[in-house]
Amino acid sequence: MSTSFRQDLQLAVNHISVDCVVLGFDGEQLRVLLLKRVGESGGQEFGDMKLPGDLIYTDENLDDAAKRVLHELTGMSNINLLQFKAYGSKDRITKKDMEWLEQTTHQHMERIVTIAYLSLLRISRPLATPPAGNEVHWVGLDEIGTLAFDHNILIRDAIEAVRHRADIDPSYLFNLLPQKFTMLQLRTLYERIYGKAQDVRNFHKKVTQLDYIVALDEREQGVAHRAARLYRFDRKIFRRARR
Amino acid sequence: MSTSFRQDLQLAVNHISVDCVVLGFDGEQLRVLLLKRVGESGGQEFGDMKLPGDLIYTDENLDDAAKRVLHELTGMSNINLLQFKAYGSKDRITKKDMEWLEQTTHQHMERIVTIAYLSLLRISRPLATPPAGNEVHWVGLDEIGTLAFDHNILIRDAIEAVRHRADIDPSYLFNLLPQKFTMLQLRTLYERIYGKAQDVRNFHKKVTQLDYIVALDEREQGVAHRAARLYRFDRKIFRRARR
Repeated sequence: MSTSFRQDLQLAVNHISVDCVVLGFDGEQLRVLLLKRVGESGGQEFGDMKLPGDLIYTDENLDDAAKRVLHELTGMSNINLLQFKAYGSKDRITKKDMEWLEQTTHQHMERIVTIAYLSLLRISRPLATPPAGNEVHWVGLDEIGTLAFDHNILIRDAIEAVRHRADIDPSYLFNLLPQKFTMLQLRTLYERIYGKAQDVRNFHKKVTQLDYIVALDEREQGVAHRAARLYRFDRKIFRRARR
Repeated sequence: MSTSFRQDLQLAVNHISVDCVVLGFDGEQLRVLLLKRVGESGGQEFGDMKLPGDLIYTDENLDDAAKRVLHELTGMSNINLLQFKAYGSKDRITKKDMEWLEQTTHQHMERIVTIAYLSLLRISRPLATPPAGNEVHWVGLDEIGTLAFDHNILIRDAIEAVRHRADIDPSYLFNLLPQKFTMLQLRTLYERIYGKAQDVRNFHKKVTQLDYIVALDEREQGVAHRAARLYRFDRKIFRRARR
């Protein structure tokens, strides 16, 4: 028999959750969609932030659960979610977080394995109205502080997953930019994703060599500084070049 | 409160497993490490094959569990395992597979979420002696037939993960080749991973332009056909070029 099971070791009471890292870019920094969390620990009320995530139901598969949970918590639908990593360390849940979970679910919990999903969203897209009692915010990555559970780690890993995906498919990052963007916005996005400064001249030179980034006869409007030229990403040219 | 939990819906009795897709290449085809499985269903004995995988224990994190399970089932250690996907659909376990699991673990099961890991191995590396009762084989991908659980899907997805990783890091595939390899072996490996024929001349031309693939003053030995030139992958040159 190929599976020998050690009867002396106990299996945990496992729960399965999904968590969604929805990333946006405001032209200056990356932002992540967070929910306000209110709880009680040791008789004291506390408030912090968490990723949209929840336990999954018996008959759901993981991908369906991610879509449902994001919809139920934020009101958002038609979001393209990509599974990027599973987290199953027992230490990922602190005592405080475990208490909060047991209070909100009325279930005894020992281990929660979470499957993390990723989505890139245009930040200009209006947020849906979340169900009553839920507060959803785009929070800048520099301002997120310490989140519930291991959600800081999930966000860090999500950005690494974006980097890997963009290395294979450079068109991926354009999901974060407006239809028309400036060279500064594009460069800033690269700097945020790759975590290092890009030389202005080299970056400009590299980008102008890419024929799928098309310079428009238009400039920014309503800005205090000198209005910069606008560019757009041409998916057709991109696809043709990659064939 | 950000997590609203529907008390009317039951949560499954969840178990967490890890499964390891260990891939090798014999110069002609990809092979995967499989275990023999023997069970009983409806009073009839059956035999088939499965990936090395098992349930994880309470205090284990996922990565440690993958290493332990692979070691316990195959005797192998020091294997670099990369998590590539989680599977949590309820239909992934057939009635027959569920019976087998309950027989071998003496546990009631409803859903098993598995976290799949991937490793590329030189097939020349001698297999460890598996624990008594376990049979481990390198099985050619064309010969695996229908495996236990959804393991055919896991293997298909693992190869896709190899492709994606190799697109970012071309050195990754050399983990599948012997230290010294022929151009035919390299081309065949590409054909197997990318699932399409490579033009012989174009492939040769492309490869000879890569300075990290070094032609040796050596030829194959002990072959019936004309002995082909041997090449090696130079990791130092590769790293320097990628800086």
